Amino acid sequence: MRGIVFDGQRLRMDSELPVPSVESDQSLLQIRRAGICNTDLEIVKGYMGFTGVLGHEFVAQVLTGPDDLVGRRVVGEINVACQACEQCRRGVPSQCYHRTTVGIDRHPGAFADYLALATRNLLVVPDSVTDDQAVFVEPLAAALQILEAVHISPRDRVVLIGAGKLGLLCAQVIRLLGVELTVIVRRERPAQLLDRWGIAHESPDGVAPRCADIVIDCTGTESGFASALDLVKPRGVLILKSTYTGLPQANLTRIAVDEIQVVGSRCGPFSAALRLLADGLIDCESMIDKRYPLADGLVAFEAASQPGALKIMLEVDGA
Amino acid sequence: MRGIVFDGQRLRMDSELPVPSVESDQSLLQIRRAGICNTDLEIVKGYMGFTGVLGHEFVAQVLTGPDDLVGRRVVGEINVACQACEQCRRGVPSQCYHRTTVGIDRHPGAFADYLALATRNLLVVPDSVTDDQAVFVEPLAAALQILEAVHISPRDRVVLIGAGKLGLLCAQVIRLLGVELTVIVRRERPAQLLDRWGIAHESPDGVAPRCADIVIDCTGTESGFASALDLVKPRGVLILKSTYTGLPQANLTRIAVDEIQVVGSRCGPFSAALRLLADGLIDCESMIDKRYPLADGLVAFEAASQPGALKIMLEVDGA
Repeated sequence: MRGIVFDGQRLRMDSELPVPSVESDQSLLQIRRAGICNTDLEIVKGYMGFTGVLGHEFVAQVLTGPDDLVGRRVVGEINVACQACEQCRRGVPSQCYHRTTVGIDRHPGAFADYLALATRNLLVVPDSVTDDQAVFVEPLAAALQILEAVHISPRDRVVLIGAGKLGLLCAQVIRLLGVELTVIVRRERPAQLLDRWGIAHESPDGVAPRCADIVIDCTGTESGFASALDLVKPRGVLILKSTYTGLPQANLTRIAVDEIQVVGSRCGPFSAALRLLADGLIDCESMIDKRYPLADGLVAFEAASQPGALKIMLEVDGA
Repeated sequence: MRGIVFDGQRLRMDSELPVPSVESDQSLLQIRRAGICNTDLEIVKGYMGFTGVLGHEFVAQVLTGPDDLVGRRVVGEINVACQACEQCRRGVPSQCYHRTTVGIDRHPGAFADYLALATRNLLVVPDSVTDDQAVFVEPLAAALQILEAVHISPRDRVVLIGAGKLGLLCAQVIRLLGVELTVIVRRERPAQLLDRWGIAHESPDGVAPRCADIVIDCTGTESGFASALDLVKPRGVLILKSTYTGLPQANLTRIAVDEIQVVGSRCGPFSAALRLLADGLIDCESMIDKRYPLADGLVAFEAASQPGALKIMLEVDGA
């Protein structure tokens, strides 16, 4: 089969990968469509030391597996948990101590014709959700994880910083809460999308310091974190939605003295994401920059690496 | 009057300070006893850019003020709030946007014969609480602020790192919750105190990574924060109890990926601290290293600066 492989040094298209063997607790999936995420771009720079087939945002059709799933369209939770460790027993499989993660950590990914994945990780996609939308389930679930991590009241003033792919999904989720939301944008494209959605935005200089009860940092940069910390009120909450390069400097004294809560947040609930998509509450289509067939995967990665790029789609089976 | 003054360059004993003038909302206090805190030592290195009489841990007698207070022994909340800003209106005067702070930020301190302080900041000390104990009310309240900042369940595994003056008070507060508590110690003296109190302790190498639901960092150092982050479980809580020098490097990616909560915590409830002291639940006496008359204040600062020093007391009026 074909697949986009990172060998630890470089990214390459491989047309002669073996079709994955399928364990008894797995289903074999035929990938229909997949999306390139910033994490994929980070992995190609060395993040997580991953090697193998990349890709963790996808929609697929079940080829082999339980009768009630075969032939259905599915998305798949990307953390494959051990079901036995303390985190699994307390109901947090996404933090399993022994987890592998699809296309990120010791588990083959979805930028390929086929993927074998634990059947318990699969969710059927309702007919009302398109393939394009379904590819956004994983990042949309990550956006929804903000609401699992912290309580946001409709009275809160929320500022989001870092209006890239994930930031724009977070903004769409947060606006559903009725809060006063401002997104800080530097580029024209996200500003236009926010205008279309009726979400307020400002330039980085347009927001007063210490104005926000809740700040969401989707930048993944040292300077973004510093800006986020400047924006949050004393006793406010700062949500980290991205990984950061290296070991950023951070004003821990400000966190202590102003009694700020910094809360990390990672993978989220797929079922909630599917509900929001089925209800038509999230605009994914406008966030798609371009589509490439899987065969042009390396060109697609180039496009995804451009500053300000939004979602690049890989059409795997031509569906 | 006499007072220990930091002029921005150096610390000096001044015997000819004017007795403070007293505003209509203030009482005049005669200081009985005061304690030297790490924050005092940091101020002498430039923290907060403070100049004036130092000192914020004290017990005093009311000389002039409301009839029901004159002659009584009091402690004083150190944040003098505006009572009008958003933080004051929401009931968080310790985070007042316009606050001054006794001996720390634009307000004269207590290492002097007299102090004028807002009467609303005063709390009468019960007869059952000694002067020595009362000096510990301010840092003990700061330790109690941990319980305001986060919910700690009796099932939680808690690790405290940084067994100095504040850390030892925090340990004594946390042990009252029935949790499994381990304090990480490097020095013999705190280890002996913890043994006396029946609180478990370990060397830095004696505790497994990711073992704690809750980690309390009282170190105020970059390496202490890194160790604290190593110790906390995914989805766990890391409480910052100290200020840090400069801009430490911090593994923000770990916070995001492991969905950790980092919670700052500062000044706390004096009334709760007085109750614990009155109930005999906190051992302050054993934490006193040495006593000096106010006249020997500079020598006392020297003693407080020694590595591993615990509480140095200033006896101001010879009481």
